[in-house]
Amino acid sequence: MSLNFASPSPDKTTQESEGPFAPLFGSDGLVTAVVTDCADGELLMVAHMNREALALTIETGVAHYYSRSRQKIWKKGETSGNLQTVSEMRTDCDQDAIWLKVSVAGHEATCHTGRRSCFYRVVSTQDGSVSLKILDDARRFDPAQVYGSAGTDR
Amino acid sequence: MSLNFASPSPDKTTQESEGPFAPLFGSDGLVTAVVTDCADGELLMVAHMNREALALTIETGVAHYYSRSRQKIWKKGETSGNLQTVSEMRTDCDQDAIWLKVSVAGHEATCHTGRRSCFYRVVSTQDGSVSLKILDDARRFDPAQVYGSAGTDR
Repeated sequence: MSLNFASPSPDKTTQESEGPFAPLFGSDGLVTAVVTDCADGELLMVAHMNREALALTIETGVAHYYSRSRQKIWKKGETSGNLQTVSEMRTDCDQDAIWLKVSVAGHEATCHTGRRSCFYRVVSTQDGSVSLKILDDARRFDPAQVYGSAGTDR
Repeated sequence: MSLNFASPSPDKTTQESEGPFAPLFGSDGLVTAVVTDCADGELLMVAHMNREALALTIETGVAHYYSRSRQKIWKKGETSGNLQTVSEMRTDCDQDAIWLKVSVAGHEATCHTGRRSCFYRVVSTQDGSVSLKILDDARRFDPAQVYGSAGTDR
């Protein structure tokens, strides 16, 4: 990793302006990454990046995250072939969140369940109880076949 | 707060299926909330919700978050008038992130800087240095006038 980021400015106006990218990593060393499809804007997933994952993403143009469960760098799609090529990266006002607009290779699926997006369920309230209903059940690949014993690529 | 959520299932298949909404709050008691405009899908902001903020959002139909800096419930737009009415709420495969599709009242601005979206800057790489360029500098309100000494509504 050759890329170095500027340190966050204590000055709020500087932090919110043009200038060096100075990501604000949390106490866990992570920023939040929101991933949308560059073609139609659909929200595909939310993940997290440490300094190394963010640098790798910028350097290679392919999305890398930090897997909190596996505690290591996660090149998204390495097992499934559903790599994410970044067409645009943005950050928010306090630089603690990253927005990636991507095109997805392979099965054009992002969720480890085989669906296009991880957000395939809607929250529904009825008679005081809150439940989830599936809006998209189309599987673009068979997780068992793709991941086998290698886990879920998350 | 009268709403109670189910406890996350230890069974992955149950967690990813239809059924009771069982949000997976992190060790900090929070889930990540991604907020898009229900009209055109633009990403407006990323925030965080604790159990109470999530319940209030579902019960009232108006977005509530948990302000990590102020350590309290944050009814977004309470000061500025830019309240967010939720038209749809989704969750992701492991139920630790929430997607809100909203319509924004008032100035139709979400960022405390007065811009429509908090993601008004693009990350740009040139000659090995990474910088931010402003894509949207249109202010829909004057923060000094709206917030005065009350802070930034974040």
